[in-house]
Amino acid sequence: MSIQPKDLSHHLSVESASRKPSPLKAIAGSVSKKGLNVISLAGGLPNPQYFPFREMGAEIPSIGSWVRGAENEGNLSNVSVPMDSQNEDDLPLSVALQYGKGSGCAPLSKFLKEHTQLIHSPPYKDWDILLTTGNTQGLDMCLRMLLNRGDSILVEKYTFPSALQAMRPMGLNVVSVDMDKNGMLPESLDNILSNWKDGNKPRVLYTIPSGQNPTGSTLSVERKEKIYALAQKHDFIIIEDEPYYYLQMDEYQHKPEAVDPKFTNEEFVKNLITSFLHIDVDGRVIRMDSLSKVVAPGSRIGWITAQPLFIERSLRYTETASQNASGISQALLQALFQTWGHDGYLAWLKNIRFSYTERRNALLYAMDKYLPKSICSYIAPEAGMFIWFEVDKAAYKFADQGKSIAEIESEIHADAIEDGANVACGNWFVVDSSINDKIFFRVTFAYAELHEFEIAIERFANVLKKFFNF
Amino acid sequence: MSIQPKDLSHHLSVESASRKPSPLKAIAGSVSKKGLNVISLAGGLPNPQYFPFREMGAEIPSIGSWVRGAENEGNLSNVSVPMDSQNEDDLPLSVALQYGKGSGCAPLSKFLKEHTQLIHSPPYKDWDILLTTGNTQGLDMCLRMLLNRGDSILVEKYTFPSALQAMRPMGLNVVSVDMDKNGMLPESLDNILSNWKDGNKPRVLYTIPSGQNPTGSTLSVERKEKIYALAQKHDFIIIEDEPYYYLQMDEYQHKPEAVDPKFTNEEFVKNLITSFLHIDVDGRVIRMDSLSKVVAPGSRIGWITAQPLFIERSLRYTETASQNASGISQALLQALFQTWGHDGYLAWLKNIRFSYTERRNALLYAMDKYLPKSICSYIAPEAGMFIWFEVDKAAYKFADQGKSIAEIESEIHADAIEDGANVACGNWFVVDSSINDKIFFRVTFAYAELHEFEIAIERFANVLKKFFNF
Repeated sequence: MSIQPKDLSHHLSVESASRKPSPLKAIAGSVSKKGLNVISLAGGLPNPQYFPFREMGAEIPSIGSWVRGAENEGNLSNVSVPMDSQNEDDLPLSVALQYGKGSGCAPLSKFLKEHTQLIHSPPYKDWDILLTTGNTQGLDMCLRMLLNRGDSILVEKYTFPSALQAMRPMGLNVVSVDMDKNGMLPESLDNILSNWKDGNKPRVLYTIPSGQNPTGSTLSVERKEKIYALAQKHDFIIIEDEPYYYLQMDEYQHKPEAVDPKFTNEEFVKNLITSFLHIDVDGRVIRMDSLSKVVAPGSRIGWITAQPLFIERSLRYTETASQNASGISQALLQALFQTWGHDGYLAWLKNIRFSYTERRNALLYAMDKYLPKSICSYIAPEAGMFIWFEVDKAAYKFADQGKSIAEIESEIHADAIEDGANVACGNWFVVDSSINDKIFFRVTFAYAELHEFEIAIERFANVLKKFFNF
Repeated sequence: MSIQPKDLSHHLSVESASRKPSPLKAIAGSVSKKGLNVISLAGGLPNPQYFPFREMGAEIPSIGSWVRGAENEGNLSNVSVPMDSQNEDDLPLSVALQYGKGSGCAPLSKFLKEHTQLIHSPPYKDWDILLTTGNTQGLDMCLRMLLNRGDSILVEKYTFPSALQAMRPMGLNVVSVDMDKNGMLPESLDNILSNWKDGNKPRVLYTIPSGQNPTGSTLSVERKEKIYALAQKHDFIIIEDEPYYYLQMDEYQHKPEAVDPKFTNEEFVKNLITSFLHIDVDGRVIRMDSLSKVVAPGSRIGWITAQPLFIERSLRYTETASQNASGISQALLQALFQTWGHDGYLAWLKNIRFSYTERRNALLYAMDKYLPKSICSYIAPEAGMFIWFEVDKAAYKFADQGKSIAEIESEIHADAIEDGANVACGNWFVVDSSINDKIFFRVTFAYAELHEFEIAIERFANVLKKFFNF
């Protein structure tokens, strides 16, 4: 049972609504009805004989080689990208190095669309994907597609600073939605919208549902359903930014190591959190997926999934903005995915998931061990890269100096750097600094080496001693 | 003698002027004054051990192997990109696959900046470059940096349709500047600006100076100097879009082949057209260079060169829009440039230049041979990929049917496709269709095989017989 997405064209910005297809479309794909081979002197493409790359290759991990103790542990395979190929699943260099389709090269788009179907099975007809050059570009594009200067956008109370840096110069009024440890509060959202008075009611919600940056919180299915019902009630679009989606972790057992649940691929998929995209019967969710956290940020490849209206408008924009994602990146990714197949890629994602669980556990254990419990509070994140912890302001030694939260955090941060531990300050992520009344820090278990976690946290705990009574 | 660029901050758009640096900058590069190794739990970077590529390589042409009859003709060399490296000219995968600098990875930026110095030696202090994901993205970025909705922008009478498709949805009023066979007319430009009445006088000129798309015209140094003087007089910014810059060709000798001038690298550089960048004493030129026509469009790498104000504002935008160009593309390009060096790259560019001269000559010769001289007129382009030719409207057989220029061109185009020849219609490139009163077609010598040129042109000439008296 597949339904038609709703007509949501009233949500397009002036800029997006006025985009026209390029007249140059007539250049490509012309076929003579007389059956003649059409010689093209029309399109300004360079002849591939002038491309200075003849063949490209890389070493990739063999399927399963990432499992510790596996027979082929550590084994590498060679993948190569030939100059030419007639196989429709290949992305040869003659195509990858040429101007490409704004939506992405066919075999890679196909793989990522199949993957999206496998994980989210969107419930309405004719949904599609469009390659981006990562979620940063995807967000910039979506904002310009949906919003005009002076419009308002809803975001979580603490959010990704680059998203704010994209929104504010566009003249958007950023509206802070309250959160608790489980993410955005539907009640806060409903309150804001039900009591909106100034006209120009927000029409777009930007959210990071899984392993939210910076809070590490993850929206439950129940909250998602409530938020989706609000989107229908108040007619807003949900931009679902999901770079951390596959970094979902098992329950923390207060031990520094982790036990691999050894999921089958089916169990792994079944255990993944239900996405907004999966419950989106109207076609009002624009999901942004990224390869940055599970393959490599330097690939600069992501994709959006949405209803045809938003895909078509995004394609028009892509053609005049980024043209297309790097063909060289696309060719290398396609070589990887083609070699691994969907099963191999799911196995890789299970490995990433387990590795992050180990890392989270090790960092949490270090925090449990060194941070003073009486003033530090945090939860074990179910997903993502981040642990967000509050330090009790009431225990701050120098309250009489009248410093702002941002000043207090900055001083502690500077001191911690001197002592060899770098953490992120809560105020960097605050949407509305006028309601910033708690001291937070964000730590990540993504980057440092495992053995460094305890050292860094112990250093930071010692810094806290200088500033807090406990 | 190097001078300070002018303060041109009054040219920034509302959007660009309001951009702020990211607070996350504090995350990177923190150094402990106590000399401790700072362990970072701050930045959300994935650990490179989770990147599924271990080594990347490609086959590239050996230096000089592209010269016909050379000892090493057709020879290929292998280049490889290691996972890690301490050599500062290397761009290893551990860097290329990670989040990168918005301005581009250091060794590639350095090479392209040196190259820019070598070719253009900008005359003012502290100019810099910034990597883009190609000139399409570069233009989108520059337009958003300089212009607000309702502003006007000056462009050549016939221009690249994607540029217009980028400008118009942004709410820009596109002003057509008259041209002759040698490009934009400074008199027309001065006329428009001197007689501008409505307020909001145009502050930006977009131009394709060399091998202009679609007209194939190239601005002489004299015209550039006149236009630059007008930019100073009327205080406008010049966006110099130069994808075809290196496709500069020798004089056409009315023969189907070409003679290699066998330039030394020094002669080659000396013979290149003087750019707007070279005469830009104020820092009011933003030059856009592209690798699409001389290396590969699928690399999606270009760069802008400009004064520090524009580079810094562009960097702020890049950080929240594209983040950075594909690291995989950058790594492969750096491997190529590092292997070739500047001399090898110049030798490659000489080869491209000569190959395009051969192609242009072959197409011109076919046009001379088959197109009816009495109604078709064109010049031999000095640069680029395109030949632009007019077909005399006075000879059109069906003038009594009252068709528009666009309708006439479309009918001829459709007929030519049926007969196996695809050419581009003049009306696709017209800025102001109310002043479109001539029939034009654009043909390119870039893509088809040499032996196909005569076939295609003969087919097209036969189609003209149906529509024109000659």
